[in-house]
Amino acid sequence: MVRTRPLKVALLGCGVVGTQVARLMTVHAEDLAARIGAPLELAGIAVRRPDKLREGGFDPALITTDAAALAAREDVDVVVEMIGGIEPARSLITAAFEHGASVVTANKALLAEDGPALYAQAEKYGADLYYEAAVAGAIPLLRPLRESLAGDKVNRVLGIVNGTTNFILDRMESSGAGYGEALQEATALGYAEADPTADVEGFDAAAKAAILAGIAFHTRVRLDDVHREGLTEVSAADIASARRMGCTVKLLAICERAADGRSVTARVHPAMIPLTHPLASVREAYNAVFVEADAAGQLMFYGPGAGGAPTASAVLGDLVAACRNKLAGARGPGESAYTQLPVSPMGEVVTRYHISLDVADKPGVLAQCAMVFADHGVSIDTVRQTGKDGEASLVVVTHRAQDAALSATVESLRTLDTVRGVASIMRVEGE
Amino acid sequence: MVRTRPLKVALLGCGVVGTQVARLMTVHAEDLAARIGAPLELAGIAVRRPDKLREGGFDPALITTDAAALAAREDVDVVVEMIGGIEPARSLITAAFEHGASVVTANKALLAEDGPALYAQAEKYGADLYYEAAVAGAIPLLRPLRESLAGDKVNRVLGIVNGTTNFILDRMESSGAGYGEALQEATALGYAEADPTADVEGFDAAAKAAILAGIAFHTRVRLDDVHREGLTEVSAADIASARRMGCTVKLLAICERAADGRSVTARVHPAMIPLTHPLASVREAYNAVFVEADAAGQLMFYGPGAGGAPTASAVLGDLVAACRNKLAGARGPGESAYTQLPVSPMGEVVTRYHISLDVADKPGVLAQCAMVFADHGVSIDTVRQTGKDGEASLVVVTHRAQDAALSATVESLRTLDTVRGVASIMRVEGE
Repeated sequence: MVRTRPLKVALLGCGVVGTQVARLMTVHAEDLAARIGAPLELAGIAVRRPDKLREGGFDPALITTDAAALAAREDVDVVVEMIGGIEPARSLITAAFEHGASVVTANKALLAEDGPALYAQAEKYGADLYYEAAVAGAIPLLRPLRESLAGDKVNRVLGIVNGTTNFILDRMESSGAGYGEALQEATALGYAEADPTADVEGFDAAAKAAILAGIAFHTRVRLDDVHREGLTEVSAADIASARRMGCTVKLLAICERAADGRSVTARVHPAMIPLTHPLASVREAYNAVFVEADAAGQLMFYGPGAGGAPTASAVLGDLVAACRNKLAGARGPGESAYTQLPVSPMGEVVTRYHISLDVADKPGVLAQCAMVFADHGVSIDTVRQTGKDGEASLVVVTHRAQDAALSATVESLRTLDTVRGVASIMRVEGE
Repeated sequence: MVRTRPLKVALLGCGVVGTQVARLMTVHAEDLAARIGAPLELAGIAVRRPDKLREGGFDPALITTDAAALAAREDVDVVVEMIGGIEPARSLITAAFEHGASVVTANKALLAEDGPALYAQAEKYGADLYYEAAVAGAIPLLRPLRESLAGDKVNRVLGIVNGTTNFILDRMESSGAGYGEALQEATALGYAEADPTADVEGFDAAAKAAILAGIAFHTRVRLDDVHREGLTEVSAADIASARRMGCTVKLLAICERAADGRSVTARVHPAMIPLTHPLASVREAYNAVFVEADAAGQLMFYGPGAGGAPTASAVLGDLVAACRNKLAGARGPGESAYTQLPVSPMGEVVTRYHISLDVADKPGVLAQCAMVFADHGVSIDTVRQTGKDGEASLVVVTHRAQDAALSATVESLRTLDTVRGVASIMRVEGE
């Protein structure tokens, strides 16, 4: 069944993931040939530093610094883009499509910024665009959403899609460490990069949320449409407070269809979730994503969200799919954005707040605060009041309300004489 | 983008799942048309009892009792087989292929018995055979295994794939009820059928294990190759004993590649798993499947394993895939059994035993028992000895050993004068 002419693969970028892609192509060569129906051949590997030592088990003669020439080779069937970032990745992918190659990438930043244009190019040149590895690493998530759930209506995607921040929060939870200390540990262990901004400020998770929301709701969601809050403001006190409520704190990516079905929202922020929720037990740098659909109900996908070999596993799965399509003269599913649902701003999201206030320890404070909630139409679920020596704290958990009303409530509370400060605000999700 | 000629779908069987398939095709008609690129049209619904009231929202004129004629209609593009069992399902599927239709089914019994023949027919007639709903209901599991992990090497699949038995074990765990009482509750709530044999004796899970092992290891595994033990022998005492070890009892389907890579095993039996294992927290009738792969690491898929709407969601996903392929003149992945790995018998499986013995309460019993383990080359992990009034019990947990050596050890223990009985034997998994 295995035909003779091999399918040629160009690998652009040979960092942590690219090296593993090359390695897996080598060690699983026979299996890949049997599964695809033709052998794979590495046509070349484009790198910036050709003298760097690499452990992919591949022929060093394949190394080139001319990524543009490699991406544009007429004999290449699939280009695997593992460079990341906007440029030169975008131009190289474009060149690949123009020369008839299909593209496999893990480039979440580019997809969140320019996904529709890439899809249009793939469509124009009859090529495939696959990017399972862009969201949640090794976890099969985009293919299930695009294909397995293609006959269902997805209403919500709720997930831990950034391993670095989950590692930090897990350490804060288990050791009582503050954010700074936990970040240091994550850096020392290689879970956080030297500049952790993309992770801890939520940019990485926001790009993934944009991709997930677009696929889940068959519409277009841009990175700018995603409300984003990082975890740098999360304190050990927040986590202790969550624990007292039977909750833990996670940085969540949440994509929702509005109740009336006419718009969608996408957001990334820290939130308290009940310890009984399956996402609460996702430890260390693991990822997990909950998907709620009309007919299927609640599904969860769990696994390693990053790392060279796990991410390469997802890339190879896409590579096999692109190669099978090449042989069959077929294409995988393209962009599906027919619903054209608008993305609503954060103010319209319905959520709950956990608010911790430092207040004067005197009679009437609770009544005064409760009035502020009522004035904004926000209903209170629970209140816990503690105090001694003239200092007191008031912890309020609201019922569900629009985020705009909740944040306006907090602003009004700040103006009260009896409220000395807002110690923490955090949304409560997963119920 | 939506072309005019609709794709015609024949629905064979209109029970709990079939009704939901018809309903979803109706309520999601516009979305399905947009996602497929052509509208779907129900060509007919074959039932045994045409006078039965059904709530699918479809035209009653579609109902027919002549399944054979419907399956063989030349104008039908996809046949959805929701009858179950071996015949007439097999003949109807064959007729569908012969007349050029692709087939979507949830028929695990037929696939476990005759999967290769069905695949060969699909191949011969250039049609698709999809059956995501046959294993773990709504959970996207077969598509991820067949496609997302197509570039990886799966070593182990470990899952809860039968909702009825998980519900029973969960009730035994949470209420302390015995097996009979928990089964009664499951029946009363509709989780168990009037004749629960297929579920409680593990036949249903064994068929799923055969399907999973075949796909995961790219080989053929027949139902007869699967070692099967049901949960009817699990007692409240077993569950209490598991709890003392920090474990819970689950009915697991386990498919493994041997350490030397030259054979595979597939089995279904109750086992103790640590409470810290993600499968331990799978409650009620939910399903969850762990997949361990070389590069991807540990993945878990979780969701509803049964029920009309969840199962129909999986069927619809397959229907969309089959229809997209029809339009593109392409085919989805066929059978992949190129490794031809043999299936080893249960005796060669490496596992651990938890053995609870009723023994005489006198000195030397432990030494005598320990000698029996040593004689069989089985190493002991922990021993707990309790006793009073001349009666004593000895609970032994072994290290990993071949199942044949472990069961031979138990047989030898039974022959000791000082061993009054073997109170329970259970394997320990998930570590």
